[in-house]
Amino acid sequence: MASRTPLPVSGAWRSGDPVGQRRFFTFPDDRKMALDNGTVMSGIVTAFETWGTLNADASNAVLLCHAWTGDSHASGRAGVGHPTPGWWESAVGPGLAIDTNQWFVVCANVLGGCQGTTGPSSPHPDDGLPYGSRFPVVTIRDMVRVQARLADHLGVSVWHCVIGGSMGGMQVLEWAVTFPERVRSLIPIATCFQASAQQIAWGSIGRRAILNDPKWRAGDYYDASPGDGPHEGLSTARMVAQVTFRSDNVFTDRFGRAMVGAQSSSDKDLGGKFEVERYLEYHGEKLVTRFDANSYMAIGKAMDLHDVARGRNSLAAAIKRITSPILTMGIWSDFLYPEYQQLQIRDMVAANGVRTEHISVDSPHGHDAFLIDLDQVGPPITRFLQSTL
Amino acid sequence: MASRTPLPVSGAWRSGDPVGQRRFFTFPDDRKMALDNGTVMSGIVTAFETWGTLNADASNAVLLCHAWTGDSHASGRAGVGHPTPGWWESAVGPGLAIDTNQWFVVCANVLGGCQGTTGPSSPHPDDGLPYGSRFPVVTIRDMVRVQARLADHLGVSVWHCVIGGSMGGMQVLEWAVTFPERVRSLIPIATCFQASAQQIAWGSIGRRAILNDPKWRAGDYYDASPGDGPHEGLSTARMVAQVTFRSDNVFTDRFGRAMVGAQSSSDKDLGGKFEVERYLEYHGEKLVTRFDANSYMAIGKAMDLHDVARGRNSLAAAIKRITSPILTMGIWSDFLYPEYQQLQIRDMVAANGVRTEHISVDSPHGHDAFLIDLDQVGPPITRFLQSTL
Repeated sequence: MASRTPLPVSGAWRSGDPVGQRRFFTFPDDRKMALDNGTVMSGIVTAFETWGTLNADASNAVLLCHAWTGDSHASGRAGVGHPTPGWWESAVGPGLAIDTNQWFVVCANVLGGCQGTTGPSSPHPDDGLPYGSRFPVVTIRDMVRVQARLADHLGVSVWHCVIGGSMGGMQVLEWAVTFPERVRSLIPIATCFQASAQQIAWGSIGRRAILNDPKWRAGDYYDASPGDGPHEGLSTARMVAQVTFRSDNVFTDRFGRAMVGAQSSSDKDLGGKFEVERYLEYHGEKLVTRFDANSYMAIGKAMDLHDVARGRNSLAAAIKRITSPILTMGIWSDFLYPEYQQLQIRDMVAANGVRTEHISVDSPHGHDAFLIDLDQVGPPITRFLQSTL
Repeated sequence: MASRTPLPVSGAWRSGDPVGQRRFFTFPDDRKMALDNGTVMSGIVTAFETWGTLNADASNAVLLCHAWTGDSHASGRAGVGHPTPGWWESAVGPGLAIDTNQWFVVCANVLGGCQGTTGPSSPHPDDGLPYGSRFPVVTIRDMVRVQARLADHLGVSVWHCVIGGSMGGMQVLEWAVTFPERVRSLIPIATCFQASAQQIAWGSIGRRAILNDPKWRAGDYYDASPGDGPHEGLSTARMVAQVTFRSDNVFTDRFGRAMVGAQSSSDKDLGGKFEVERYLEYHGEKLVTRFDANSYMAIGKAMDLHDVARGRNSLAAAIKRITSPILTMGIWSDFLYPEYQQLQIRDMVAANGVRTEHISVDSPHGHDAFLIDLDQVGPPITRFLQSTL
């Protein structure tokens, strides 16, 4: 990597870093939480942001759930504390698709994350040192249980809507099944009821790239010198993911066979680098500066473990618990979460007589279209939010 | 990895290993070959196998071109010298789709390979030590030029047909453009005229996994102790490839969310391993035992560089050189070499008035269907071979 200054050992937000728009909710001392894997955690901190104002009867609250490497910064400019603009910057705000003049919008960094919520880079309550390899396996359901405590804290007993794409959509579906009485409507986008074998395959390959990085040191790397973090592993993992987030068509249109610095495809420098390689390296290195390798591992594993049927007898039994109107959205060019998965959600929920609606996003951008093509994603959300009032 | 005996440093065939069905052709001392990258190589050795008998006017010769990790062993049982059965075992033989009672069939390990043909694990002519990092960048066109010398040696001035899938298909197309007068018919399967940006992306990620393996040692690892080769990197690279070689549907049908040793998907062992992970690890480790990491890198790079237009002004100009009847085959579930690439070959060749035929293989198995669904792939080949007599 060509950084001039050494990369941080971990791109995690740490106590003492600029807070930005973050606010924090800490479980009171007497509130512990048992995770799905049996670990009992205490002192869980959740970093969150809000936009708009909760109304008197607390009926206008909307929860946004972020994806793998997202965080609470769904909206707001890049600046101190937030190196990048909000991940749904052009969809969340006054007069936008999710209109903060009408809705009280909340977004929280997930359990296991690295942007202020308790995760592997957070201090372990026993000794104040980072959890590292001591961080337990967490699930999407665990993330949602933490969000439920935050909702209690904010005075939100029922969300008007829970919205999210990709891993955010997994959280939407776990909200629907775990807390059906606390959601009035649901918008899962480009997601699934259960991670598929191919999704697990991609995830496990990314984790393996990190595991193989000698600087990962089984997850206990936080005491390394700057530049000595598991950067190569995390970069490679991100490169795998980045290909799955986009599409063949868009890669062809954007990069084709162009080579870095070459004038034409006849360039003789057979040892040269293709533009698509530079693009992947850029995305790999960019993630390293803002994310923590252990969080990438933990959240990736949570996605692989995602299965709303787990411990609930059957998928059908789990889905029977969903009673709120649901708007599913799929993207035809998404080969990571193919649209048939969202149609399965629609069909299985509709079979129980629950109101459903499906939008097929006509975008070539692949999975990430839910972050890119907001002109298509936004208007159905706006309509659906009104229609479920 | 759970091997009981240390893995070989390299899975390459080396002088002194059992020869099996291999035969060898070595460029005479005075025959050097200039590669596309400018390197002049001498003493190139080609390992090849043949089946059937060349007829009196040498008109019944068929060249099979192997894919990335294939070799000359297209047909024949596993045994001494050949750890796995032929890669087209059930398609090549007496009375089979490529009937060796009729055809003289040749298959050669490619330049850069590791099963007897000169590659990075071969002795450098200057010092007898493995090329390692000294091995030059090679191209598909270089591979085909070496095969042309082998054809000369065998007394084959014109192949009745050149056949291959994936990288084998790239060789078919380079034969068609580089030596149009030496091919009577062509069968490129699940391949392309030019590697796409997404194909390059997958390839470069696999190479990066090897580059990042500290045991790769920039390619000069052949003096390592058993077990100390770049196994982790090569395994990870293979895992990436293995996902792209198959399909979402087949992974779901075969593995779903089953966990190793678990009785049901409700299994509480959240730290467990999914069957699909075990499958990928198995394929990663299996490749390590029979392949060389440097060859994996070199051949992968050759695929990324594959572009029949390179140095030929334009793709259209290159394709104008193709004058032989061509049977293209695509697989609808192939997301690595999507069928539109094969239809592009068909359409661009047909536009020049050349006879074309296209077969769409109706298989869920993805890219590897050309190795799996021989009941669909074989009969069109048989018919086409006869029709071009």
